[in-house]
Amino acid sequence: MRHFDKKIGYGDETPIAALATQPGNCALTLIRCSGAGSIELFSSVFSPSNKKTLITEVEGNTVIHGWIVSKKENEKIDEVMISIFRAPKSYTGEDCIDISCHGGFSAWKAVMAVLKDAGFRDALAGEFTFRAFVNGKIDLTRSESVIELVNAKTDISRRHAVSRLCGSLEKEINDIKAMLVQVLAAAEIYLDYSEDEISAEFDAGASDEIAGKLPNKEIARDALEKLKKLSDSWQLERLYQQGVTIVIAGCPNSGKSSLFNSFLKEDRSIVTDIPGTTRDWIEAFVSIEGIPVRLIDTAGLRESSDSIEKIGIERSRTLLLEADIVLYLINEELDLTEYGDRHLFVWNKCDISPLPKPFPVKDITPISVSAKTGQGLNELYRAITDTIKKQTINISGSRLFDEPDAAAIGTERQKKLVDNACSLLEEALALSEQNEPLDLIAPLIREAVNSLGEITGEVSTADILEEMFSRFCVGK
Amino acid sequence: MRHFDKKIGYGDETPIAALATQPGNCALTLIRCSGAGSIELFSSVFSPSNKKTLITEVEGNTVIHGWIVSKKENEKIDEVMISIFRAPKSYTGEDCIDISCHGGFSAWKAVMAVLKDAGFRDALAGEFTFRAFVNGKIDLTRSESVIELVNAKTDISRRHAVSRLCGSLEKEINDIKAMLVQVLAAAEIYLDYSEDEISAEFDAGASDEIAGKLPNKEIARDALEKLKKLSDSWQLERLYQQGVTIVIAGCPNSGKSSLFNSFLKEDRSIVTDIPGTTRDWIEAFVSIEGIPVRLIDTAGLRESSDSIEKIGIERSRTLLLEADIVLYLINEELDLTEYGDRHLFVWNKCDISPLPKPFPVKDITPISVSAKTGQGLNELYRAITDTIKKQTINISGSRLFDEPDAAAIGTERQKKLVDNACSLLEEALALSEQNEPLDLIAPLIREAVNSLGEITGEVSTADILEEMFSRFCVGK
Repeated sequence: MRHFDKKIGYGDETPIAALATQPGNCALTLIRCSGAGSIELFSSVFSPSNKKTLITEVEGNTVIHGWIVSKKENEKIDEVMISIFRAPKSYTGEDCIDISCHGGFSAWKAVMAVLKDAGFRDALAGEFTFRAFVNGKIDLTRSESVIELVNAKTDISRRHAVSRLCGSLEKEINDIKAMLVQVLAAAEIYLDYSEDEISAEFDAGASDEIAGKLPNKEIARDALEKLKKLSDSWQLERLYQQGVTIVIAGCPNSGKSSLFNSFLKEDRSIVTDIPGTTRDWIEAFVSIEGIPVRLIDTAGLRESSDSIEKIGIERSRTLLLEADIVLYLINEELDLTEYGDRHLFVWNKCDISPLPKPFPVKDITPISVSAKTGQGLNELYRAITDTIKKQTINISGSRLFDEPDAAAIGTERQKKLVDNACSLLEEALALSEQNEPLDLIAPLIREAVNSLGEITGEVSTADILEEMFSRFCVGK
Repeated sequence: MRHFDKKIGYGDETPIAALATQPGNCALTLIRCSGAGSIELFSSVFSPSNKKTLITEVEGNTVIHGWIVSKKENEKIDEVMISIFRAPKSYTGEDCIDISCHGGFSAWKAVMAVLKDAGFRDALAGEFTFRAFVNGKIDLTRSESVIELVNAKTDISRRHAVSRLCGSLEKEINDIKAMLVQVLAAAEIYLDYSEDEISAEFDAGASDEIAGKLPNKEIARDALEKLKKLSDSWQLERLYQQGVTIVIAGCPNSGKSSLFNSFLKEDRSIVTDIPGTTRDWIEAFVSIEGIPVRLIDTAGLRESSDSIEKIGIERSRTLLLEADIVLYLINEELDLTEYGDRHLFVWNKCDISPLPKPFPVKDITPISVSAKTGQGLNELYRAITDTIKKQTINISGSRLFDEPDAAAIGTERQKKLVDNACSLLEEALALSEQNEPLDLIAPLIREAVNSLGEITGEVSTADILEEMFSRFCVGK
């Protein structure tokens, strides 16, 4: 059980219940319950098929078949399978019950109503994971990786989230923190003793670190290096989480829709189903080297002077302005007046007419493809990822498509705290270079250690936790 | 294990896997696996947290924590809780595994890919329930009630489905069948013996039933009565399942939208979330006495001569024609030329101006309501349900809002088979009245018994089963 500086206002300790799966026209729906005394509470609304079964006495990790019953209306509500978990061996670390109800919209609502009558309350967003954190089952980096995993759009984003769920970031942060604690411990020894005492106790090798100078400076520098690498990793992680928008544009009949479809055909569709939109343009979500790409075909946008159709042109302009990359299908003339690094020029239908060399428009080298035969598409994908790299990754020796298991940052919150630790450490090292006294330097390092502790939740304030867990979905 | 007249083409006996919950931005997603050898197969892709656990050896109804792993890529795919079920104590009657993965779109897809690599195949729609039926775990009426439950739109439809899931219809059908079998058995005794032998063996009381006459005719009549009651029940059940459409219409500024909103405010919204439509009119799904009502407000439809707006008027006409009930907001004149029983006239804003009595339009008695104050709304609801009753229920002594636990028919398939049994029985009784020989009558009763056997699945052909289970959702 973790303890906090003040009482956390994030829910109380009442047994909670929430839908854990998406309701829909499906076979099953899962409801989760958690809290001290929840099994006793639940036993009042559950009738096991085997009348001899006493769920208040069964062992943890047991599945039982039976009915949710409404004592009030003396009615069978739904036939269910329940899983009983006993504290501390559960997700939250409390007594828990998972209820597998029938699918659809009716059964789970009726079951939830019965649970609430029995004394359960609706869980807040993220309250299950919050309780898991409070009960020391999971640190904050793992907690956050759970949302990352749920939101993962491509296989690579899932893999990175799983790596953090396995503790890769937690371990890296703890390693760096241990280095800084070592530095801090040495510094505090110096602060606790007078200069003379230290001279007497330590050997000559340590003499140049005495007093104003930071001991173990090399360790501090290594820690800073590791922190910077972590900080840089966010550029890539954010890309995998948020993705980019690519708009296909160009003159009429240049094959915009064919190119759009050839992206889809390549089975690069990302593993997310965004609900159908009613927009005027066609869009799809595809994965290019694991990067989630929102791909937009402007072919549907009519170009006309008619008043209604003008709206289409306006929208087209907005889309083009917002795009991270514009794939512009070009012919032998360039009808764009302004273009920049985010424009990739594409010569489509190269199976019918080959790309003229040199290309008649100055400084333009289109990528030659055929949406029909698939020729040149791999080169196009490479050009796209190169452009994304250039736009997104400002670090030398980009780690774009490798090191999936290397520790990396998964959220803005973590990034801010890592950057904060970086600044503090840089300041400490700079002060040390200027021979400033250790009692100015040590507090900075202590603050950096605390900043890292906040990442894992070892150091945490009620406010931060409330803010963080409220971003979870309900039932998690 | 049930046996069939021919090999059923509905899947083979390979272990199957399918998503059992709706994918979405939620905490968890459930995948189900079933089949002989499925636990052994699954053990190749599962790594339990407690390394000592051997899932091939654990008892049934046990939950185990661990990771789905891809041996091929030597990678952890997702952290899961699995429930192990051992044949015959499972939903399907086979060895089963329920896998509780993380929510979102990425985790379950990756887990399914690993399962398929391991040798599981995608389950067909309804294949889990089909296997449960084949293995004698569930009869056909209960199987069908599972889909009814998933599709239930109101609390009453859920309650009726649950009643069939508890076996209310199965029991009623079996009771009626037992009565007919009794009649048939007696008839067959007469058929097996000559007239003289029967005279010698049976006492005088039975003499008037000899030869041409059907023995136990009263039992046959009682059975017919029960069958007719069942057949009638479908009118009501269908109403609860499919509901009605009510359109609110009337002159501009008569308060159509206010009335629409007051229906919603009454917290009568039914327990289903129909995905948002992009139609020109506003609609909502509400429950009126447990009847699912699609309520349409035509206020959004513009009435103008402009070419685009004409489309709106056309749509409005179609909606009005398709409506089961039209709530027509009236003022002191009637601007409708044609109206009938499905029109309910409503005098809105009675808080401002009371309904004139007598009402100036002949033969019209509007219902006086105030959408603003709620006055008269209960009378309106009653008028609506009375109109629905009149339209839907052709039976004397309608059971509209009562007897939730009485046996009732839940599907068109059951209705057809009950009606078939009714006709056969009526024909048999008619032949008996005409003193036709028993060897003409007995086969009809036998056929009626078979028809009832088809309802529960005791008598079933491969074709019927294939057709029936393919209407299920996948994962059920």
